[in-house]
Amino acid sequence: MAEVRNMQVVLRDYVAGFPKESDMNILEGSIRLKVPEGSNEVLVKNLYLSCDPVMRIMMIKVEAIDEYRHYTPASPLTGYGVSKVVESGHPDYKKGDLVWGITKWEEYSFITSSQICFKIEHTDVPLSYYTGILGMPGMTAYAGFFEVGSPKKGDNVFVSAASGAVGQLVGQFAKLSGCYVVGSAGSKEKVDQLKNKLGFDEAFNYKEEADFNSALKRYFPEGIDIYFENVGGKTLDAVLPNMRLHGRIPVCGMISQYNLTQPEGITNLAHLIFKRVKMEGFVVNDFYHSYSKFLEFVLPKITEGKVLYVEDIVEGLENGPAALVGLFSGRNVGKQVVVVSCE
Amino acid sequence: MAEVRNMQVVLRDYVAGFPKESDMNILEGSIRLKVPEGSNEVLVKNLYLSCDPVMRIMMIKVEAIDEYRHYTPASPLTGYGVSKVVESGHPDYKKGDLVWGITKWEEYSFITSSQICFKIEHTDVPLSYYTGILGMPGMTAYAGFFEVGSPKKGDNVFVSAASGAVGQLVGQFAKLSGCYVVGSAGSKEKVDQLKNKLGFDEAFNYKEEADFNSALKRYFPEGIDIYFENVGGKTLDAVLPNMRLHGRIPVCGMISQYNLTQPEGITNLAHLIFKRVKMEGFVVNDFYHSYSKFLEFVLPKITEGKVLYVEDIVEGLENGPAALVGLFSGRNVGKQVVVVSCE
Repeated sequence: MAEVRNMQVVLRDYVAGFPKESDMNILEGSIRLKVPEGSNEVLVKNLYLSCDPVMRIMMIKVEAIDEYRHYTPASPLTGYGVSKVVESGHPDYKKGDLVWGITKWEEYSFITSSQICFKIEHTDVPLSYYTGILGMPGMTAYAGFFEVGSPKKGDNVFVSAASGAVGQLVGQFAKLSGCYVVGSAGSKEKVDQLKNKLGFDEAFNYKEEADFNSALKRYFPEGIDIYFENVGGKTLDAVLPNMRLHGRIPVCGMISQYNLTQPEGITNLAHLIFKRVKMEGFVVNDFYHSYSKFLEFVLPKITEGKVLYVEDIVEGLENGPAALVGLFSGRNVGKQVVVVSCE
Repeated sequence: MAEVRNMQVVLRDYVAGFPKESDMNILEGSIRLKVPEGSNEVLVKNLYLSCDPVMRIMMIKVEAIDEYRHYTPASPLTGYGVSKVVESGHPDYKKGDLVWGITKWEEYSFITSSQICFKIEHTDVPLSYYTGILGMPGMTAYAGFFEVGSPKKGDNVFVSAASGAVGQLVGQFAKLSGCYVVGSAGSKEKVDQLKNKLGFDEAFNYKEEADFNSALKRYFPEGIDIYFENVGGKTLDAVLPNMRLHGRIPVCGMISQYNLTQPEGITNLAHLIFKRVKMEGFVVNDFYHSYSKFLEFVLPKITEGKVLYVEDIVEGLENGPAALVGLFSGRNVGKQVVVVSCE
């Protein structure tokens, strides 16, 4: 059987500091579209790839952070994507099935049964949503807000990186739960979208706030019950003294710190004691057992227009490195997706 | 009725930096040993006063940290103590009753019904224990370890300030729960006591560890399940990357930071995510409803010798300021108590 082109995005070398497009190479390899005899692997064609902040952590050379699949120089990046089965050696998958889960940054990939992989059953929504609202970021927002955050009606909720893949959903879930919600983001366009499109009560551009503490006091004169943490650093340090008694801080990410060789120090942790605050890190992998419950919750809300989802879609795998790097300067507006192929 | 002497320890002025004996004054006032007609206050003679790290926080001038009773310059310090009722305007207390709870640093005090106050029913133990193992620190260790820490048999437990009023109990409770326990303290004497008297599996002098991270790796090659946080700062920052998956950090205190005008920055909080760690501040006041359950648990363990308690007892209210200040240089070995009067 003839081989076909298999363009790949590979890591050039471990990254320190801000990632650049040149930290990745575009390679034109080739692949034989055939699952080896006796193998239970699945060969997929990648349609959409997801740009996620956690990918920055996977570019670091570290000895071991449990369960993070770190990248290897000269190998393609791995990440979440939406793919179509070309050929299957596994009884659960057949040619033509649509799946989402962990794949590689290339046109065609072999997927093993140990990788996170969900079959896509609902196709009356944009397929790209399975990299976002119906995929890992959606499940992250759902688990982090409802399971870790334990919201109650009337809670005051603050979300950082609020227009991102996860943040925009946390804010909307909070509004559906009867909470007061304020988001921070990094541009006027994002702030307008949060207030006028996504239904946040308030939003502000953190780059325009010289004194973050007084900004928070302005929006939360009575304090914050839930801070959904996406950014870390100065934002977290300003939030801590503004937490309310028995507040919760689900820690989803700390994107502001991933590119710093020395992270910013957090000095206000004693407020965890004063206000009896629970700060809890979580990883979506621990919650995938609730994925079908999540779909039951969110699919009707999408079709009824009660939850919106903003995507920033870039065409072409060769434009993937720029899209991924853009996450860290906040270039994207909404969930950053890379289209590899439309079908 | 004649008045009697009422020696008091009063705060001279708000404190910045390390507290000094001279931040407090000894005053010789006087008091009429009589509850005013119609008042429901209780007049007590203070027997033992407790030196607690939280008293440092109460010396700061701050606008409002909810529920902390901050000191007022020229007024006596408040704190926990053991006292004997001299006269009572309150139906629940009568002359001769022994009580423990919030009182003032003086020989005689009026206590109001809104103050935390427990009647002492068991007197077959040293009365001073009600400032420690049978009082606020005991209840703190119990609630923080069992309720916030959620220990399981076989857990790896690390306790900082391990020979202090709370730490020595956390370690012993952890051993009773089938955990592996390591404590850190600030002198050879304390370390020996932890290992040879209090039953810790291991203990080390943090002042002798140039690289705290490798010390933790040595004692916890498989990581830490529960870190009972008493000190904050560099210790916390070294602990975070050594936490185990789904670890818990009950945050009881951060004594290393209370005297710094600028707290040390914590840079490793992203490990809360990597390891799904829950870090939770708590205050003992939220757990006093379990006090009788705690007594049922701990009293037999004291009489059977299964739990020991080390006290550092100073005689005389006039020596109280030095005893209190000594907490912050680690001068005390065990729970620091001041004897005001023996009966």
